[in-house]
Order: sequence, then structure tokens, then C-alpha cells
Amino acid sequence: MNVIDLNADLGEGFGDYTIADDTALMGLISSANVACGFHAGDATIMANSVRMAKERQVDLGAHVGFPDLLGFGRRRMQIDVPTLANYVTYQLGALAGFAQAADYPMTHMSFHGALGNMAAEDPALALPLLKAVKAFNADLIISTTAGNAVEHGARELGFKVATTFLADRAYDRHGMLVRRGLPGAVIHDAQHISRRVTRLLTDGTVESIEGETLAMPVTSILLHGDTPGALTLAQQIRSDIEAMGVKIVPISRHSR
Amino acid sequence: MNVIDLNADLGEGFGDYTIADDTALMGLISSANVACGFHAGDATIMANSVRMAKERQVDLGAHVGFPDLLGFGRRRMQIDVPTLANYVTYQLGALAGFAQAADYPMTHMSFHGALGNMAAEDPALALPLLKAVKAFNADLIISTTAGNAVEHGARELGFKVATTFLADRAYDRHGMLVRRGLPGAVIHDAQHISRRVTRLLTDGTVESIEGETLAMPVTSILLHGDTPGALTLAQQIRSDIEAMGVKIVPISRHSR
Amino acid sequence: MNVIDLNADLGEGFGDYTIADDTALMGLISSANVACGFHAGDATIMANSVRMAKERQVDLGAHVGFPDLLGFGRRRMQIDVPTLANYVTYQLGALAGFAQAADYPMTHMSFHGALGNMAAEDPALALPLLKAVKAFNADLIISTTAGNAVEHGARELGFKVATTFLADRAYDRHGMLVRRGLPGAVIHDAQHISRRVTRLLTDGTVESIEGETLAMPVTSILLHGDTPGALTLAQQIRSDIEAMGVKIVPISRHSR
Amino acid sequence: MNVIDLNADLGEGFGDYTIADDTALMGLISSANVACGFHAGDATIMANSVRMAKERQVDLGAHVGFPDLLGFGRRRMQIDVPTLANYVTYQLGALAGFAQAADYPMTHMSFHGALGNMAAEDPALALPLLKAVKAFNADLIISTTAGNAVEHGARELGFKVATTFLADRAYDRHGMLVRRGLPGAVIHDAQHISRRVTRLLTDGTVESIEGETLAMPVTSILLHGDTPGALTLAQQIRSDIEAMGVKIVPISRHSR
Repeated sequence: MNVIDLNADLGEGFGDYTIADDTALMGLISSANVACGFHAGDATIMANSVRMAKERQVDLGAHVGFPDLLGFGRRRMQIDVPTLANYVTYQLGALAGFAQAADYPMTHMSFHGALGNMAAEDPALALPLLKAVKAFNADLIISTTAGNAVEHGARELGFKVATTFLADRAYDRHGMLVRRGLPGAVIHDAQHISRRVTRLLTDGTVESIEGETLAMPVTSILLHGDTPGALTLAQQIRSDIEAMGVKIVPISRHSR
Repeated sequence: MNVIDLNADLGEGFGDYTIADDTALMGLISSANVACGFHAGDATIMANSVRMAKERQVDLGAHVGFPDLLGFGRRRMQIDVPTLANYVTYQLGALAGFAQAADYPMTHMSFHGALGNMAAEDPALALPLLKAVKAFNADLIISTTAGNAVEHGARELGFKVATTFLADRAYDRHGMLVRRGLPGAVIHDAQHISRRVTRLLTDGTVESIEGETLAMPVTSILLHGDTPGALTLAQQIRSDIEAMGVKIVPISRHSR
Repeated sequence: MNVIDLNADLGEGFGDYTIADDTALMGLISSANVACGFHAGDATIMANSVRMAKERQVDLGAHVGFPDLLGFGRRRMQIDVPTLANYVTYQLGALAGFAQAADYPMTHMSFHGALGNMAAEDPALALPLLKAVKAFNADLIISTTAGNAVEHGARELGFKVATTFLADRAYDRHGMLVRRGLPGAVIHDAQHISRRVTRLLTDGTVESIEGETLAMPVTSILLHGDTPGALTLAQQIRSDIEAMGVKIVPISRHSR
Repeated sequence: MNVIDLNADLGEGFGDYTIADDTALMGLISSANVACGFHAGDATIMANSVRMAKERQVDLGAHVGFPDLLGFGRRRMQIDVPTLANYVTYQLGALAGFAQAADYPMTHMSFHGALGNMAAEDPALALPLLKAVKAFNADLIISTTAGNAVEHGARELGFKVATTFLADRAYDRHGMLVRRGLPGAVIHDAQHISRRVTRLLTDGTVESIEGETLAMPVTSILLHGDTPGALTLAQQIRSDIEAMGVKIVPISRHSR
């Protein structure tokens, strides 16, 4: 690979609450996924996120989730699909409002947490939600883990797609993320993570948790901001990438 | 007057709650002010309101309020002005999202309830909020009672303005609404309301609560949907207007 | 039967929103299940419900649901059980606060909507939630449809139980409610409903949707307040009961 | 003084958000004021706070605020007094529910943020809110800054009162807190704070911002948990107190 995007979920505070050092993260990434007030985020945090993204020329995306601030959007909710599609439109519009006011483009969107997991598993959910995205703006890039119902639905509907690699999460032989809570699901060793990033950028593969070689055709690496040591890890991954001579480029310039 | 707009505040339910017969109202008006989820309204109600407005070719506006569903946006909140400006942008964006998805234009905005009253009284609040509107979309028409800080601020910032007459509310000699709760503030007699509408359309005046003739240069008459008998009154006002040969025309076609 | 309770879900408004005529309903029932601010209800509505219950000497119970005002507690949420148990305690405490302030006892509780359905199906959910109720107040009566995991759990934990008959809903041969949406699930014909009530009070049975005789050992009949014609139906059921010489008595006086 | 209480506002997180190290704070204080889900806090945080208070035998109080999670209860809201009184009852009941479930007494209450400031200034607000507290539980201790409308109202209604000293905040000659934002309002120098605590415990006075000696008859010192260095400061104040041979004792054992 010659180019890669670095992205992170940002703007996940609420009111007086903060959950990550967004200012520092914004200096490391090339694309930001900004919470829209349903699972996290509020109007002021969104305005600040857009302003910072513009200052840093970081790609701006909407991170769309369940209306469940209390559960941070991580609890599954059985909501009928047309209603959920309206929740998607609402969140896209809200962030686009700040983008429009700042005269800075919104380039992409992704699904957060439980909504993301449910859409990834179920084309009957992914497709109508993606149709809501398309009705709003067919030019948005859909950012997602590769190989799931969201990617397939997005391709089917003609969207450009940015596929994302989670450097500190194990994958199984099918390219699916090993569930949090299972042994080895989260990789904590920084050197291990570095080797994974280096390998990905060298030959586009990753070692699955079973030890097999897995093709990982991604446009982006996802950094976490809300875990202990997240910033240090993010800086290290950025350094690893730069040391290999790979360019860090926002997804809007190299997604297909 | 040859033309007048009929507008109403719509989409003020929430989840399973409804507060007015929006479908019936939408058939009577030429402009709708749709709640955006802060003081009332939710994503599905907004989507339905936009759809109905498009079907009826009713002008679509954002009705922007305080984040206080419990108080229906009618309780004053001391929120710092930049934060409030962000709340305005968020709400405008959210409704604009549904408008964009429905390929139907959002034409105007107004301030709801306590936020509307506070902005009407205070240029130091009205102006920054209107600047937030302008940064979002300078072509929106500002809908407001005439003669207050919102109208003045909107004119100063170069907005087109739609001024609104409340047919069932008394005005004092300065053109200000008599506060709810004071004697005579709300007019319940249907014939009295009819005479006021007829007079307004004939010579552009209204009788103040003190008995004086008051110029009332308005582009729109506001119908209430959430009071008992509201629909009957709305139909009567519509009939009164049509009986006079005055055309009912959305504000976007005759605001300046 | 010599005695029966008439109960209804009350206090299901929020802020300016109302969903039923609580004052009229309160005059017809002997037990009220009051929403506690999670799926519906707010502090003022709860205070008023407690005051009315005391005036009418109606039994006061907590109607406990998911934190989902937007979905009226009717959407399933996958929330870990200890967290849900805390939500139960919170809601019980909140209503008990108003009861304590009014010096009127809180006698019972029931689960609302999706939470009620999930607990009814799953002992692994029902039991821990009922343990939370027990830690709060072991003397509360658990109000539930007969024969499900909530009744079984409540009996196992030593609670008194009030079993409830839904006069306008069909049951299958196993005594389970026919799901809304299926043909015949909701009975609209008033005479049919009257016959069901009369039969229940005469011999304690109901005809299942398959046409079989089903024992229905209940302490209470549930009235709906939020459907069209609900009040008329409630009055009719009350008249039917009184015409048979059966006494309408709050659940706290005849639950076991 | 022979005894003093150390108290702190706790349980001010929400969902995944935390704002202070409650576990560490709970080990330093003798009384906790726990948020009740309106301005901060949620059911699980409340349950955990009650459990920790019981383990540490720390006095448990309700910290009651405006329904404004987005503004952390720090924004004034114009809410009619009977409604506010209901909000007070709701919050007291909710926390009391957890206390009852844990079989641990709730001993006191205080008003948070903007609600606290408004009540402190206005007997017409303080008195009805305190009457709501009294109707709920007349044995609760009212915790408040000395000399304001809350203290006066509480005394008038026969409550026991715990008066609170803010070690890192300047007072004016009238015993009122110097408003945040004014020069000198917040004291950052640890040695200065130590001297204030020592002086208070020695002769019951503090130096006002104007340089005058001010009597400060308090039963408690308030520690902040949500500022940088808060824990270090709290530990230092605790050490200062212990070094003087003064006993740290929960308010319920020495309030009058």
C-alpha cells in the first residue's frame, strides 16, 4: 500500500462529560467519525469537532447510533426499520448542519456500536438504512469493517466504501472480529500491534486468531481514543506508518 | 392585502404522543413550522411532516426551541449564547436532513416558546442566534411577530422576514402580544376573531387591547393546532380569507 | 367469584402530553399502575396520580419499564440484567417517594411493555428483577398475567400475586395472550367483551381463540385507557360486574 | 471544633461517563451527596454509590438538581414551583429506593448547582422545596452553605441543618461565596487552603476576600472531586484535620 487513512471515533462526550482527548486525536488522524447526539455527542461538541476537522483538514463523517445515551449506543434495541431509517436521516442532517455552517464538507458515515453490529449481520437492516443514507446524500462514503452486510449493501447501492482495520483487535479466519470478551480478542501488546500494522501495509494481510493468513483489503486503520494508553498507541501506529513511507491520506481521496 | 400566508406549528408530538391533528392542519395551511426534536418532535414525526408538506406543497420551516421536552420548550433556560447558537444549528440541520432526503426545500425558520420570547426581547440573544441561522443558510426566511428584536436582527442581517399575526391573541398599543394569563389576552369568540381577520385583510390594522388602531403589517396568520376547537377555528379563518377573495400563498412567495 | 379488582395503567403522559383521561379512569378502577418516568410519566403526573389514587382509595402500584420514552417502553432493549435490576429499583423508589410524601401506601408493581414481555418469557430475567423488587419491598404484590415466568418467579420468592385478565384480548389454549397483529388478537365488539367478563365471573373460565374452555384464575381485570372508546368500554365492564353482584375490590385486599 | 464532617458530591457520572474517582473519594469523606439522575447520575451509579457508602459507613444524601443532564444542572431554568417540588420528591424517592434496597439509611439532602443557587437566594423558592422534602421525610438533614434562604427555611421548618465550608472558595464579608469567574473566587494554592482549614478548625473563622475576619459556623467541609488535583487536595485536607486532632464524623451524628 502507498496510502492509508487513519480514522477515529470522536466527539463522544456529552455536556460536561468527556471520554477521550479529541484535540490530540484530531492531530493524529486523517478522518473523524463524529457522534451525532443519539448515543453520544451534543451540539457544541459537534460544532467543535467540525471546526477542528476543518482546521486539520481531516475528513468529517457522521457516526450514527441508537438513541441510547445511557447505554452509549452499545445495547441492541428492537426498533422497526422505517423508524431507524429516520433516526439515521436525523443524525446525518444534524452533523451536516454544522458542516454546512462551517463551509466544510461531510464526506462519510458509519454505524456505531449495537446498531453497527446489527446492520453488519443483517442485510434486511443494512439495506434500508443505507437507502436512507442514499436519499440524504448518495456521495457519502460508507465506512465499515470489510465483508459484512453493510459493505455488501453499500456496494449494491453504488456507494463508495472505506474499509477499516482495527489494529488492536483479533480477526477470525473469516475476517470477522473476534467478539470482545473472548480470549485474545483485544491485543494489548504494542509491539504486536506494530507488527500487524507493518504486515498489513506490506502485503495487505493479517494473521487470524487461528494463525492463518487473512487478506485484509482496507483503506483505513481505526484508532481508539477512549481506552487507557490510546493516544500513545495512536502515535505509535502513526509513526509505524510514516516509517514505512506510506502516506496518511483522508478516505475521501482514495475510497472506491 | 391580496395575498396572505396561513401557518401553523406542527410536528409537536413525541413518540406515541400527539398533540394536534397534523394531517388535518396540513390541509388548511400554506406554511408549516416543524418541531425539531428539542422541545417536541422526533425523527419519524419530522419525516412525516416533511412528506405531508411536500404532498400539499406547503412551505417547510424549522421551529427551533430549548432542549426541554419535559417543559415543551416553554420554560426559560439560562444557556450561554454560543451553546444556544449550536442548538439552533443542530435543529436546522436535522430538519434540513429530512428535507434533503425528500428533495423538498426548507424555506424558513422560527423560534419556539421561551426561546422565542427571550430572543424577541433581547437583541444580544437574537443577533447571535440569527447569525447561526445565516451561517447555515442565509436564504431562510425568518418568521416572527413584527417589531421585536428577532425581526430587527433579521432585517439587519439581510434575511427576508415573514411577520405573523395571531388572530386569537390580543396586542397592546405597541404591537406586543398581551401576555397569556392577563385578562383578554386570548380571544375565544369566533365572531370576534373573524372580524379581526377581516379588518386585517381590509386595511392592515387591528384594534389594540386599549381600543386604539394599530398597524399590523403582516405576511402570515398563525393558526393554533393544539387548543380545543383549533381545527374549527382554523377552517373558519381560512373561509373568512377566501370569502374576501384574498389568496392564501406560502411565505416563500411573498416575504421580503 | 365474589370480588374482582379493576385495574388500569395510568399516568402515561409526559410533560404537556396526555394519552388517556386519567381522572375519569381513576373513578372506575380499584387499582392503578402508574408509570414512573422511564417509558412514560413524569414527576408531576406521578404526584397527581398518587393524589387521585388516595382520594379514590384506589390501590397504587408502580408500572416499571425500559428507559425509552421515545418508544413508550414497547421496544425490546438488550440491557444486562444487573443494570435492569437497578432501573427497577429506581422506578419503584421514585413512585414510593410520592406515596410516602402523600402518606398513602404503594401496594403493588407490574412490568410494562417490552420489559414485561421479556420477563414473562424468561425466568433468567424475571427472577433477578423480582429479587430487586423484594430487596426494595417484599410486601409489594406482583401484578401479572397468570402462568408466565413473572408469576412463577413471584410465587417462588414468596410474593403475593395479582393475576390479570385482559377482557379485550384473545388467549390461546395455553393461556398466553395472542400476539397483537394476529387475527382476532384484539376484541372490539362490546357485547363479546361483556360475555367474556360475565363468563369469567360466573365460572372462572374464558373461551380460547381455538374455542376451548380455559381456566382463568384471576384477581383482576385490566382496563385500557389509551384506545378509542376505552372509557365507554371501561364503564360497561364496570356495570357488567356490578350487575352480577360481584364486588370491585382493590388487589391488596384479596391477592395471595 | 472537636469534630467535623468531610463531604463530597458523588455519583456524578452518567452511563459510560465518569467525572471523578468516586471510589477514592469515598475513602476520604464521611458524608456523600449522590446525584439522582436529573443533572447527573443514573440507576447503576446510584446503586454503586449506596453500596460504597454502606461499606465505608459514609452518610448518604441526595443531591437534587434540575432536569438538565446536558447542562449538568448548572443552567437556571424557570420552572413553576409546584413542578420543581415534584422534581425534588422524585429524586429523593429514587435515591431512597436504593437506600431501602441496601438497608442503609439516607440521612440528608442538598440542592445542586443552579437549583441550589436559586433556592439559596429566594425564600419563595427554598421554602416550598423544603416543604416537599419535609413531606417526604422530616428527619433528613438539610446540607447547605450557611446563612442563605435554604438554611433559614430549613430552620423554620424544623429540619436539622448541616452547614458547609468550601475550603477552596473565597467568601465575601457577608459570608456569601464569591462568584466563580471573579478574581480570587477559587483558591488554587494548597498551602493557602491548608491555612484556611486550620484556622476554621481552630477558631471557627475564615478571612473574607476583603481581608476581614468572618465567623464560619460549619459542620462540614466540602471536597471537590471533579477538578484536576482534587484527590490530592482532598487527602491533604483530611491530613490537616487529623493532624489537629479533630475527628472526622458524618453529619448525622453532629448536625442540629
